[in-house]
Amino acid sequence: MILVTNDDGINAKGLKSLVEVAAQFVNVIVVAPNEGQSGMAHAITVKTPIRVHKISYYDHITTYIITGTPVDCVKMAIDRLLPRKPDLLLAGVNHGGNASSSVMYSGTMGAVIEGCLNSIPAIGFSLLDYGKEADFSAVQHYARKIIKETLKNGIPVGVCLNVNVPSKPLGKIKGIKICRQNRGVWREEFEHRTDPAGNDYYWLTGTFENLEPLAEDTDEWALKNNYVSLVPVQFDQTAYQFMKKLQKWELK
Amino acid sequence: MILVTNDDGINAKGLKSLVEVAAQFVNVIVVAPNEGQSGMAHAITVKTPIRVHKISYYDHITTYIITGTPVDCVKMAIDRLLPRKPDLLLAGVNHGGNASSSVMYSGTMGAVIEGCLNSIPAIGFSLLDYGKEADFSAVQHYARKIIKETLKNGIPVGVCLNVNVPSKPLGKIKGIKICRQNRGVWREEFEHRTDPAGNDYYWLTGTFENLEPLAEDTDEWALKNNYVSLVPVQFDQTAYQFMKKLQKWELK
Repeated sequence: MILVTNDDGINAKGLKSLVEVAAQFVNVIVVAPNEGQSGMAHAITVKTPIRVHKISYYDHITTYIITGTPVDCVKMAIDRLLPRKPDLLLAGVNHGGNASSSVMYSGTMGAVIEGCLNSIPAIGFSLLDYGKEADFSAVQHYARKIIKETLKNGIPVGVCLNVNVPSKPLGKIKGIKICRQNRGVWREEFEHRTDPAGNDYYWLTGTFENLEPLAEDTDEWALKNNYVSLVPVQFDQTAYQFMKKLQKWELK
Repeated sequence: MILVTNDDGINAKGLKSLVEVAAQFVNVIVVAPNEGQSGMAHAITVKTPIRVHKISYYDHITTYIITGTPVDCVKMAIDRLLPRKPDLLLAGVNHGGNASSSVMYSGTMGAVIEGCLNSIPAIGFSLLDYGKEADFSAVQHYARKIIKETLKNGIPVGVCLNVNVPSKPLGKIKGIKICRQNRGVWREEFEHRTDPAGNDYYWLTGTFENLEPLAEDTDEWALKNNYVSLVPVQFDQTAYQFMKKLQKWELK
């Protein structure tokens, strides 16, 4: 059984495109947010209660919507909705890229890492196109390959996959490249406005800035050069290489 | 200059206790959420605008409150509120622990990792006591030591620190232990209720479950044995050790 979720909400075209691919393999269950949850990262809902509705949305595919975050969807699926732990968790296809440090902010990757924490093999798919009517056929092609290999080979506990696909026709994409997460950052520019009552408010906007030379082993390079980027992601964030130096600090 | 933020909001006692310690070093600026933001992880506010208010709260300390997440606070501080990049970012003191995989869900650590992404040395402090009137004197003692050493030695770009303190009097704490992040998971139990109109809803609750034998080099062990845990955290989540195996998958 494959659990499919996303962060753009139940009505996103990207979700439908991923459900179509997943259903070619085994039984699929969809548990998705009732509305868009972009930028929710690994957030969980603790201050408000969550509501769950079973809906008829896809033919022959059990589907639930939840008034919560993508991580809530995974937790609710595991605790309440699924008859057993799924064999695979898929999230996406996200409308917009989640490469480099975007993995931190992404609700799509939040769901994937939550699956990973629960020892479920998990893959996030994102297309570098924010458009509501984006063309997901190239993602579907590569998702099929990657899902097949994941079911065949497995993923070690503690690791999950982050797949990003350039916004190009299938014929223009050169293949899949296994990469590391590029070191980059979103430079924020809060756009200032004034409401009708004369009070200030701000909208969060930003542009991505690369903080290292564009190296061939990074996801940013792969995407810029028309490859699908495949980054193995782990939830252990311990900076082991810094422990020895820390031991020398005067902390007694 | 030290930027101080938190996820429990401006009125939390833990924030005050951290501001007091920080002010013993250099100039402090506080940019905190106007209300509690627990469980917000690395979430950013993209669907609603953000409002900022400068308030008189602490004597001689410039303080802003924001209608957003801890990560929004850091972004807003860097983009709009601070005269220059701060020398140090401190988040907390969180009311409740953020060891093991809680680092993923924590708004406190969200702010810290956001600082880290922006090449600012950053430390998160958490006390294993959810109480509003918890005793922060032991945290203050250890925060002073760790801040002093951080300002003296620096932290490499891409690394930040996650400090958790047991809920014990200072005399009962054995010292600081440098640890790795324990592998554990929150097992959710959604508590089911029915509203006055007869509709179902759920509250997210959970209990922490250790997924590995309690090893002496983990933060969970340290905290259970009355040590302060100090885990160096990195934002690069690439699972390098899995790349070689991935290369063997049939992805052509």
